[in-house]
Amino acid sequence: MRAVIMYGPRDVRVEDRPDPVLLKGTDAIIKVSAACVCGSDLWPYRGTDPIGAPTPMGHEYVGVVQQIGDQVKNIQVGDFVVGSFFASDNTCEICAAGYQSRCVHAEPIGAIGTQAELARIPLADGTLVATPGQPDDDLVPSLLAASDVLGTGWFAAVAAEAGPGKTVAVVGDGAVGLLAVLAAKQLGAQRIIAISRHPDRQALAWEFGATDIIEERGDQGVTAVKALTGGLGAHSVIEAVGTQESMMQAIRSTRPGGHVGYVGVAHDVQLPGDELFFSGVHLHGGPAPVRRFLPELIKLIWDRKINPGRVFDLTVPLEEAAEGYRAMDERRATKVLLTT
Amino acid sequence: MRAVIMYGPRDVRVEDRPDPVLLKGTDAIIKVSAACVCGSDLWPYRGTDPIGAPTPMGHEYVGVVQQIGDQVKNIQVGDFVVGSFFASDNTCEICAAGYQSRCVHAEPIGAIGTQAELARIPLADGTLVATPGQPDDDLVPSLLAASDVLGTGWFAAVAAEAGPGKTVAVVGDGAVGLLAVLAAKQLGAQRIIAISRHPDRQALAWEFGATDIIEERGDQGVTAVKALTGGLGAHSVIEAVGTQESMMQAIRSTRPGGHVGYVGVAHDVQLPGDELFFSGVHLHGGPAPVRRFLPELIKLIWDRKINPGRVFDLTVPLEEAAEGYRAMDERRATKVLLTT
Repeated sequence: MRAVIMYGPRDVRVEDRPDPVLLKGTDAIIKVSAACVCGSDLWPYRGTDPIGAPTPMGHEYVGVVQQIGDQVKNIQVGDFVVGSFFASDNTCEICAAGYQSRCVHAEPIGAIGTQAELARIPLADGTLVATPGQPDDDLVPSLLAASDVLGTGWFAAVAAEAGPGKTVAVVGDGAVGLLAVLAAKQLGAQRIIAISRHPDRQALAWEFGATDIIEERGDQGVTAVKALTGGLGAHSVIEAVGTQESMMQAIRSTRPGGHVGYVGVAHDVQLPGDELFFSGVHLHGGPAPVRRFLPELIKLIWDRKINPGRVFDLTVPLEEAAEGYRAMDERRATKVLLTT
Repeated sequence: MRAVIMYGPRDVRVEDRPDPVLLKGTDAIIKVSAACVCGSDLWPYRGTDPIGAPTPMGHEYVGVVQQIGDQVKNIQVGDFVVGSFFASDNTCEICAAGYQSRCVHAEPIGAIGTQAELARIPLADGTLVATPGQPDDDLVPSLLAASDVLGTGWFAAVAAEAGPGKTVAVVGDGAVGLLAVLAAKQLGAQRIIAISRHPDRQALAWEFGATDIIEERGDQGVTAVKALTGGLGAHSVIEAVGTQESMMQAIRSTRPGGHVGYVGVAHDVQLPGDELFFSGVHLHGGPAPVRRFLPELIKLIWDRKINPGRVFDLTVPLEEAAEGYRAMDERRATKVLLTT
């Protein structure tokens, strides 16, 4: 099969690799229908997270089940499936509490690589969710978004306790931040403040349900959010970047007793204990347990209630993955879809 | 009146000071029946938090209302009252959400000083709660505990979402930690792991409802909590110390998706963003909004359902406050009550 391999910073190649095979009775092999490049793939692409050896890439995927292990019961060959970026048994105590990304048997799909024609998915019964049938082509990007960026934005909005009567601010205007706007809207938030200085992303934020857009970042962004909230700060703030500045902006934009939901993968972040203490906020986040939300998200997409696939603004064939990485790195694209 | 003044590290004196007077129509003057020395008073006593000038001390208090301003409506002269360590209007949006310690008009009672015969309490209607009548003498220590250490331990248990079916671990065996054990028990926790190496404090933890006691601290304490919880960590962990070690012990002792309630005033704490991210815990805490819980706590005490006054193991007259500070500093006492 053909697969995307990263050799080092800005060195992404598409190569022949052996087809994956079932390693355990709980595995499935899927034919990947579509995959994508994640904002987090840019950390190694830019050299921030060094990689030691040529590495298969990709952890977002939708596809058709081609083969299942002898212990797989919930998923059939031929099913169209969506999975998340951690394989999970979906039965352990941690999964039962809704934290499948921290399943006691969790396996990162990123270590397998789904930017490829085929992928082996461990713990298929607990990881994959079948759609009600074969999707229309126009639904595929949205189903793919559910695999990570929508699921992550949704978790951030839930972690921030977005809901009726709440003012929600979103720090970060990448695909996750934009889909957190969509999630906050679906969860019934009264007011949604998107923070973005890019006209194309602002346009998508409006479309997804933003009621206000501010362009200021850092402490100026805090001041702007407070000015919109009677000086108190937002009830709910979503952090979807992962830097010291964005985390502090999120915490400082939240009113005492409010909730910060943070999903940007933390890089060189140190939270000052005394400021956090006196802020009085709730803090929750981490790798999103996307599996918790997949059935609900698939239904919303299938019923055409939401259109998260709108975040894909560039589609390239798998063979041209390197161009997809470049476009995201250079911010020519918000989110790149790879077709197989 | 007589009042406790701190001049510098380990220099606590009792002096004549002018009687307080009403400054605003919303003030009340109370005759302090009992006050106490707080664990947080030891930070300046030990020189960790330097004080610039002679400082009135004390922020915990019960007493009898002696005088009220012309705008005070809920509180009468002669009422026996309990208040918390922040004055609050109890009507603003932040108070209404239950965060009275961050009221938009909050005033720290510590700046006034309640280790004294009399005290001016701002925003009396929003700050003070009257007991159903004059309390029996044996109830006074428990009502005094409600003013801070019980209210703070209770908030920590609520922030950690202690409740039925939950395993709760408590880091810190001072008065707040011990009363967090009591709170977790009242909130219905199934299992309560106290962490203490002092026999007298262990005894009180058992009395308050601990089901397990471990003596290990730091990473060894984490290992011990995991050994008691099937390797997963506790559902709820209460942090009642305020150091880097205690915060990291609390976070690492919590299972993914679990809750850390932290009330130890943070000193030189820096939380590593990446570890916090991948921990998947909820973090909430800060200066406890004791006022939220006072009506419920007073009722439990009045009905003799709980006896938090047990944390006081030394009672001295106000005139001997210096000995009270010494006893707490030297760990000869867990919590010192000052009689006026």
